[in-house]
Order: sequence, then C-alpha cells, then structure tokens
Amino acid sequence: MAQQERAIRTRRVILEAAAAIFDEHGYKSTTIAEVLARADVTKGALYFHFPSKGDLARGVLEAAVTTDGVRPQALKLQEVIDTMLLLAHRLPREPMLSAALRMALDLSARRQFGTAWPEWTELIAGMLGDAKGRGEVLPHVDVADAARMMVCAWTGVRVVSEALPEQPELSGEIALLLQLLLPAVAAPTVLPRLEVSAARAAHLYADMPAWRAEAAEAAAASGLVH
Amino acid sequence: MAQQERAIRTRRVILEAAAAIFDEHGYKSTTIAEVLARADVTKGALYFHFPSKGDLARGVLEAAVTTDGVRPQALKLQEVIDTMLLLAHRLPREPMLSAALRMALDLSARRQFGTAWPEWTELIAGMLGDAKGRGEVLPHVDVADAARMMVCAWTGVRVVSEALPEQPELSGEIALLLQLLLPAVAAPTVLPRLEVSAARAAHLYADMPAWRAEAAEAAAASGLVH
Repeated sequence: MAQQERAIRTRRVILEAAAAIFDEHGYKSTTIAEVLARADVTKGALYFHFPSKGDLARGVLEAAVTTDGVRPQALKLQEVIDTMLLLAHRLPREPMLSAALRMALDLSARRQFGTAWPEWTELIAGMLGDAKGRGEVLPHVDVADAARMMVCAWTGVRVVSEALPEQPELSGEIALLLQLLLPAVAAPTVLPRLEVSAARAAHLYADMPAWRAEAAEAAAASGLVH
Repeated sequence: MAQQERAIRTRRVILEAAAAIFDEHGYKSTTIAEVLARADVTKGALYFHFPSKGDLARGVLEAAVTTDGVRPQALKLQEVIDTMLLLAHRLPREPMLSAALRMALDLSARRQFGTAWPEWTELIAGMLGDAKGRGEVLPHVDVADAARMMVCAWTGVRVVSEALPEQPELSGEIALLLQLLLPAVAAPTVLPRLEVSAARAAHLYADMPAWRAEAAEAAAASGLVH
C-alpha cells in the first residue's frame, strides 16, 4: 500500500472512531483519549491529521455530505432520489452520518461548527438544476426552494421517526416522503418512471462495495492515488 | 372573575413562565425557583397546579398540541393547512410551542416525557380522514402515513431553517412545504381552491383575539365556565 493511501486510511479510521463516540455521547463529552483508544492509533498520528477536537468535528460534518454509491442514471431526478434513499439506509448503520446529525441538533456544537445542511441543500439544488435543464422538473419549480424543503423534510423524518414509539425504518419513511414530494417537482412524463422504495435503498447499499472498487480504479487510472 | 377562571389563569401564567425558561435554558437547567420568580406566584400556587418540575414539562407538551385560532372552513383540508400555517406563525412568538419542540429534541427530556409528535400526528390524521371522507383527498392516500410525513416535514423545516445562516421566516417556509406536499394529497378539483401562504398565517394570527372571545363566549353559554 502506498504511503498516501495509508495516510488516507488512518485519517478515516480516526474520523470513524471520533464519529462513533460523538454519536454515543455527544461532542462535548467526548475526549481525545477516548478517540485514541477507539481508533487504536498513536497520539502523533491523531494530531497529525486532526490538531484539535474541533478538527474532528469539522471532519465528521464534511464526510457526512456524500453521494457515495449513487450511480449515474438516465434520469437526473433518479439520482436525487437515490442520494436521499441511500442516505436513509446508511444513516442508521454509519455513525459518521448520525454523528453529523446529532451535532447539528446540539445547539452548542452547532454554534461552534455549523451544520452540513447548507452543503446538502446546495448539492441537491445542483442536481435538481441539472434535472430541470433536461426537462425533468416542472417549469415553475424553484430548485433552490425545492432542494431546501427536501433537505428539511428529510431531516424531520429522521428526527421525528427516531422518537416515535414504533421507530419505523428510516428508508421506508424517506420513500414515503419522496412519494409525497415528487408530484410537485417531477414533470408528469417523468414521474411514473422514477423508482422510489426502501428496496431500492437496500439494493443501492448492497452495491456499494462494487461502486467503491470502481471508484478506486477510476481514481488510480486518473493518477489520484499512486 | 369566578374562582375557577382565576385558577385556570394562574395555571396558565405558571406554565408560560416555565415554558419560557425551558425554551431559554433547557429543561434540565431550569429550577422551580426561576419559574416562581418569572411567574410571580406563591410556592403554594405553583405546587397546587404542578407538584413537580416534571408536571410542568408534561403541561408544556400538552399545551403545545393546539388548533386554537383555526376556524371551521368549507374545505377540511383548508383546516389542516390553517393548523400548520398558524403553528408556524405562532412558534417563533410563543415560548410554549418552541419549548415543547426543544424538549422533544433534547434526548434526556424526550426519554422522560416523550414528545407531542404522536398527538400531532393523530390530530392531523383525524382531520385528513374527515377531508378524505368528503372526497377532498386522493383515494389512494393513506391518511396516517400522510399525517406522519406532514408532521415530520413540518418539524424538519423548523429544525433546519433555524440553523440556516439566512434564518428564513418559518411561516413562509411552511407555506412552501405545503405547496410541495399538497399535490400528492389533495384531489385535483380541491387543490386550486386551497389557500396556502404566509400572509394567511399572519391573518389567522391577527384574528386570534376575536377567535378567543368567541370561544370563551361559547364555553360560557355551554356552562363550562361560570
């Protein structure tokens, strides 16, 4: 393994350890000593990648905005759906994602580090803009407004459903949400061609190792990793 | 003023004082002494109405599920919209409502007292069920699912928009949200007749004193208050 690749892995291991502890105990209660123990790395390695606990928080928030696993689709709107479905399937399984949300909901952490919501909104707005350029979105839809509402509603589904006594599965709930939102967004000819289901979320997730392998290969071919 | 009415008012004053402090500092940091000072009532009065701090929390959560100010409309769906719009206009102005949400987002308060979300969902589901019975809702819509999604999405809009740098006004954001959700819920003949705007929220709010006077009169006439 090349040195650069090893450094990337170490950084990721540290970040995942920090995310897991942020997710369990909150940002404030987490200590660097706990992160060191969980990541099983040297103090030097940790401080090389993350000079302070705040850098760990910022790293987690940054890593939580991701379209990993989303493949190009014939319809750009399907990519928006896939992004939101896959995130719903991954969040309960990946502390990096739930830690970022927990920090966004924690008023004191939010004041220090902000949230990933503006980046999410921008990402979705960009995808919706592409979809609109291809005629997939109803002409009167303001893509910035629609993107912000989609991010808001997605977040609300997670926040509320976690607190409901029946604790419904997040990907099923997000599929329901998207089915309610899409008729106001998608062009009528596009709407019936969109696939929105928890099963699709699970399928996209199962396909992630293959997606990662292809992404790594593409990166190697482009000379990004030596 | 009759004795019963006075007791109701004292109870309300105490609850509003508690809500204001919960909203500012969180449930855990609030002390009974602070509530006493803010409400300016005797210890005896406070303990008569609320034997413990937990009873104050439960009282706030209960008071936060409200259709006050929502008048009967020709379309039941308009009443659903009015409920959600009015709540959006009131929440930033009434600590009782924002305190209930803050407690729902606070993991430790939530574990002790639950949240108002199941009651909200039930309330909206009941209204949507009435609307469906009158043919205002698309036949394939599951009212329980739709109600839950509306409550989730409403909550998400509040949670996220509060954290956005531009801090958009809540009632405008909720109007946008409803415009996105309604095409998947309302029958096509009903949809264009629904009024969804921040201006309507402000109008409903301005009309609340008149609404209260009428409600008090109706209660007096029915012998509820002597």
